Amino acid sequence: MNHPLHITNSLSRQKEQFIPLNSPFVGLYVCGPTVYGESHLGHARPYITFDVLTRYMQHLGYKVRYVRNITDVGHLENDADEGEDKIAKKARLEQLEPMEIVELYTNSFHDSMRALNNTPPGIEPRASGHIIEQIAMVKEIMANGYAYESNGSVYFDVINYSKSNDYGKLSGRIIEDLIAGAGSERRELEGQEEKRNPADFALWKKASPEHIMRWPSPWSDGFPGWHIECSAMSKKYLGETFDIHGGGMDLLFPHHESEIAQSKGSCGKAPVKYWMHNNMITINGQKMGKSLGNFITLRELFTGEHKLLTQSYSPMTIRFFIMQAHYRSTLDFSNEGLQAAEKGMNKLLAAATLTSKLKPSATSTSDVKAVRENAYAALNDDLNTAIAISHLFEGVRIINSVYAGTEQLTADDIAHLTETMNLFAYQLLGLKDEVVASGDELEGVMQLLLSLRADAKSKRFCYF
Amino acid sequence: MNHPLHITNSLSRQKEQFIPLNSPFVGLYVCGPTVYGESHLGHARPYITFDVLTRYMQHLGYKVRYVRNITDVGHLENDADEGEDKIAKKARLEQLEPMEIVELYTNSFHDSMRALNNTPPGIEPRASGHIIEQIAMVKEIMANGYAYESNGSVYFDVINYSKSNDYGKLSGRIIEDLIAGAGSERRELEGQEEKRNPADFALWKKASPEHIMRWPSPWSDGFPGWHIECSAMSKKYLGETFDIHGGGMDLLFPHHESEIAQSKGSCGKAPVKYWMHNNMITINGQKMGKSLGNFITLRELFTGEHKLLTQSYSPMTIRFFIMQAHYRSTLDFSNEGLQAAEKGMNKLLAAATLTSKLKPSATSTSDVKAVRENAYAALNDDLNTAIAISHLFEGVRIINSVYAGTEQLTADDIAHLTETMNLFAYQLLGLKDEVVASGDELEGVMQLLLSLRADAKSKRFCYF
Repeated sequence: MNHPLHITNSLSRQKEQFIPLNSPFVGLYVCGPTVYGESHLGHARPYITFDVLTRYMQHLGYKVRYVRNITDVGHLENDADEGEDKIAKKARLEQLEPMEIVELYTNSFHDSMRALNNTPPGIEPRASGHIIEQIAMVKEIMANGYAYESNGSVYFDVINYSKSNDYGKLSGRIIEDLIAGAGSERRELEGQEEKRNPADFALWKKASPEHIMRWPSPWSDGFPGWHIECSAMSKKYLGETFDIHGGGMDLLFPHHESEIAQSKGSCGKAPVKYWMHNNMITINGQKMGKSLGNFITLRELFTGEHKLLTQSYSPMTIRFFIMQAHYRSTLDFSNEGLQAAEKGMNKLLAAATLTSKLKPSATSTSDVKAVRENAYAALNDDLNTAIAISHLFEGVRIINSVYAGTEQLTADDIAHLTETMNLFAYQLLGLKDEVVASGDELEGVMQLLLSLRADAKSKRFCYF
Repeated sequence: MNHPLHITNSLSRQKEQFIPLNSPFVGLYVCGPTVYGESHLGHARPYITFDVLTRYMQHLGYKVRYVRNITDVGHLENDADEGEDKIAKKARLEQLEPMEIVELYTNSFHDSMRALNNTPPGIEPRASGHIIEQIAMVKEIMANGYAYESNGSVYFDVINYSKSNDYGKLSGRIIEDLIAGAGSERRELEGQEEKRNPADFALWKKASPEHIMRWPSPWSDGFPGWHIECSAMSKKYLGETFDIHGGGMDLLFPHHESEIAQSKGSCGKAPVKYWMHNNMITINGQKMGKSLGNFITLRELFTGEHKLLTQSYSPMTIRFFIMQAHYRSTLDFSNEGLQAAEKGMNKLLAAATLTSKLKPSATSTSDVKAVRENAYAALNDDLNTAIAISHLFEGVRIINSVYAGTEQLTADDIAHLTETMNLFAYQLLGLKDEVVASGDELEGVMQLLLSLRADAKSKRFCYF
């Protein structure tokens, strides 16, 4: 593979050339969703980012094994008022079943990902389906002296681990601050008294009587800690050390820092060569949060049913809007920004379709090869989709000028530009033709559908 | 629930009134696909049948927990030529990963099910994700003396179990024949010498060195037998005894017979109140089989790309064709049959749409209430969709006659008939509007799309 793809490695805080451990194979692990609620804006960004990365690496010739987990080990509890006896007397079907909730939101997540045109990962392991592997890894960490049991739960011993390892390196935390109790994870406020140090984190938790999801283990009937699933599942499917681990920047600490500690604590090896993190999104300049009333699900964006939205936005508008920013920049969602993205994308795709109507000339007045070269250069520079799109708009300008007769292109150049537009817009950036209409716009929709390229043997139309 | 729904119970070989164990809750378990190949015609029938059953039970007011498993504990092996050492030296990413194959075909199965408009089950557990539960059940069976270990594998002891239990009752097999070695399962030709009796079946198998999917157990590094997953997962999500277990008739023996033995052998209780089995399909009168060249996948049906197909058939055509036979009858697939189904369905849905254009009269010349009553009666009589559809065609006849002016209906009767057609065609039988077109038919498609009912706030059109 002779290419100059560089990506920013969160571990070194630098752009590094991407050289896989075992080319042409690439192992990619991305932290997946917790499926106890609707997918929201925060899910769209990482999964679009790593979808584009996967598409591009495959285009470069790599064989990518893309693993993205489903976090389904939930924390639902039966109603404590009822007491254990009353719950035990209830028929199985009357009891709350976390897996029904898991299934509902996994399906909803898949629907949203499909709408956003994200190619499904090659393996999508569920945490609940890998309890055996998680218990095995906890045992290894304990055998190496980096974890201890306390009252049926098992905790990672950060102080002992830090004697010979650099805990905090990825996230830039200072170990002394952590040991002093700053920044300990919110998910474990209960059980603090079981820990030797506030910085320690749970590998296994003993289940309280009300806790529904539970499995037997050498320590207690309980459930795995939050971090261990990603370490155990990435090792199972990608090996002890793999190429790229991705996720949102909010996962740097404690989640990814703990993943490194768990892997090194069990097999002595650092798990990941390149850590990649996408930045956060804001909504009208504010952090998104349920308490702030600006929490927007993907479904609400697609239908427009949220008080902050002045219209609905199609999945491709969301995708294009996200790609119009570099993944390491913060991104602010606003109606104005989304409407501008919608117009821009329509302009881009209309031009891509218009290439079939261009008439060739004897000479060319524009350099179409530069469009492709510049777009490649942008993706090679830390997957800069924003800059790549700006170069595609130079292609749009040329196409529209040639169509208007103010510029000329040779037949070869028309073919080259057509290929560039299709390669980048559809194959690499993953856009697709879609038409959204409401009420009296339907007639217009029909005309648009008619204009879609009819190269397939047969087409099925659906509407929803 | 005051209704006269009767279903044929394979266990009693009789039609029985459906009375759930713990109304209004209903537990339904249906054997899901083995995801090591494309979904085919054999998958369409059971999942459409039990989708209609679920829709109808929900309509009757039941709270249905529908569990359908994914059999992903596969039997892939690494290339034996390479030897264990060479495989161990290979990087993890270079090795065959069964879960990639599982994911590919699970996604493909879901795509087909969505196309057929089957509502996803409430829980879709994977066998590989429930090894702990399977091992626990094997331990229980062993503790009760109904299973034994042999060379790292564990077998169910059919002879000992039969002393106090009726092995063979569901499938009508005679235990003496089974013990003599007739009809032992094909999947276990290897390992016969480890069994005390040919009728015994594996609960746990020790993995050979080449076998990829393996888990630790008290007996060996290995994998669960074929039958134990359904017993363990149905118990986990529906309880020790639940209402309905469904599947194809080919699963009666040994699969479902073994499920009963496993459940009774572990907890002493029969697992299922009503066993429901759909009959098989044939293709042009022949059994479907890869060696016969008449093996047709759902994808091939949808695209028409198979030498036996004279055209493509839309997912709704397949659905309608399957519902035009009672689920307990054999069903023969042929181009003629499918084309007739396509015409019939179009006629039915066109009439359902036409109801909005009917002009009311002062009196009615037809009894529209009988249409609904008869359609209900058909579903109540062992889910007879074939008869229900024939009564809907009486509704079609009335609608077309009223539209042509040869019959009259009052406004109330038009409303009643409209509701009947929508309830049965869309909600209970699960049909949906779809348009399939190729090449020059596209213009016609646009006109059809225009005529679709535009009651949603906004619609998204996609094409594929």
